[in-house]
Amino acid sequence: MALAASRLKALLSPVLHCKPTRLFARYNVAAKTAQLSKSGLRLYCVRMDSTGVLFRQLFEPESCTYTYLLADADTKEAVLIDPVLETVDRDLKLINELGLKLKVAANTHCHADHITGSGLLKQKVFGLKSAISKNSGATADIMLSDGDTISFGKHSLTVRETPGHTDGCVTYVTGDQSMAFTGDALLIRGCGRTDFQQGCSQKLYKSVHQRIFTLPGHCLLYPGHDYKGQTVSTVDEETKFNPRLTKPLDEFVKIMNNLNLPKPAKIGTVLFCSYCMNSRKYQ
Amino acid sequence: MALAASRLKALLSPVLHCKPTRLFARYNVAAKTAQLSKSGLRLYCVRMDSTGVLFRQLFEPESCTYTYLLADADTKEAVLIDPVLETVDRDLKLINELGLKLKVAANTHCHADHITGSGLLKQKVFGLKSAISKNSGATADIMLSDGDTISFGKHSLTVRETPGHTDGCVTYVTGDQSMAFTGDALLIRGCGRTDFQQGCSQKLYKSVHQRIFTLPGHCLLYPGHDYKGQTVSTVDEETKFNPRLTKPLDEFVKIMNNLNLPKPAKIGTVLFCSYCMNSRKYQ
Repeated sequence: MALAASRLKALLSPVLHCKPTRLFARYNVAAKTAQLSKSGLRLYCVRMDSTGVLFRQLFEPESCTYTYLLADADTKEAVLIDPVLETVDRDLKLINELGLKLKVAANTHCHADHITGSGLLKQKVFGLKSAISKNSGATADIMLSDGDTISFGKHSLTVRETPGHTDGCVTYVTGDQSMAFTGDALLIRGCGRTDFQQGCSQKLYKSVHQRIFTLPGHCLLYPGHDYKGQTVSTVDEETKFNPRLTKPLDEFVKIMNNLNLPKPAKIGTVLFCSYCMNSRKYQ
Repeated sequence: MALAASRLKALLSPVLHCKPTRLFARYNVAAKTAQLSKSGLRLYCVRMDSTGVLFRQLFEPESCTYTYLLADADTKEAVLIDPVLETVDRDLKLINELGLKLKVAANTHCHADHITGSGLLKQKVFGLKSAISKNSGATADIMLSDGDTISFGKHSLTVRETPGHTDGCVTYVTGDQSMAFTGDALLIRGCGRTDFQQGCSQKLYKSVHQRIFTLPGHCLLYPGHDYKGQTVSTVDEETKFNPRLTKPLDEFVKIMNNLNLPKPAKIGTVLFCSYCMNSRKYQ
């Protein structure tokens, strides 16, 4: 029996005592919604997930770093994951155009190869909190531990500690486990290097296998960097095709010990730390 | 009245004579599905839309070109929009890993600044068809006109002619008008240049206003290039914030006439045309 959408809505509404859009929300499915932002723009969600999260992936080409913007489409509260210093103005412009209220700048780790944009963002956005792992060696307004959550509106990201690239690496996972932001722990068909700044290949292997590969197979994995123009992967794909992390531990350790990568350009140099506003030596 | 998901499913199924997942499909909402690809990988759709389209955005950094992979999650038939010569191997690797069958390499226009990957793909993928506008001056297996559709499985892309950057520019629009691939006609907060290779700013303005800005406001716009690390926009956003195309026509024409851009690096040089397999002079 085929029913017109309008008829079906009319039918369902009284039976369920809730609007059909709420029915869909209960079933973890997307509903098209539009709200007016401050600037009068209809805030249609970009690839909106089941719970009404607006999502944008942004790229900084020099360090090949991804920054991720997530916002609650209702309350407009937003989180920016791994903001990059060089793209702070671009990101703020977008946030303002979309009428969002940036609450937290959340870092997956203290990058050795480039400086985060959190400090500059804090200067420009009143009330913005920075966040980073308590194991990172950096300071921030919110010092994160495993299991902590970062809320934006009715949504949140849960912290999973995934050390190995650095001691303070974390992965942020959305409440429905449909998306995970893995920083440099897991890259698409790769992983972060483990030969400097507390790097430990055994630790990284354990982190990825126990804290990322245990997420649902369909969970979308958004990395901290990509050097080949790839944007996203899934747990299923990486458990099958990651050329390093599908290997047994001893083989993985051998691979990581023999990468013979050049030292990162900025290692050993004194950089301005945008968390603590002091200079800081990366080593 | 709150109902458990299982109870609600049981309630709806007999009333509607279809499975709840089909109900959701009718309402243009996402349903989690997983199929086994040839390689045994569960093919969870990446930000799968209502109709089960697997989608990937891919980037080539030298020309800052986006390539888009769309596939039917059931039949595995796939289309690659704007493949780039330099990334053919990367894209084919992904297509093979995901167990997809690439049917069409669809180009939004004949790029003056880089060579398409269609020709090389045709050599590597048996039965692959190339597609381009009949107004492009290039040759391909499928010569497209306005309103034509490119099918992949139960899905399709509809061609909208959007000349102005070149005479043969087209925009590909998904069947449900939730996504449009605008090539160089409309870029995020910008547009393609109009000062060479049949470029015409008046024509571009008309194309964007009549054929792209008339799509639903929530329609996601995926450009052919981006030079600032942006990945996606919407019709709503561009009609409000595009700094050129929100202007009246005469002002837009003035802006485009005064960009004073350098000539593209490869213009005037004889390049191997990967459509017709002959050398070809871009001018």
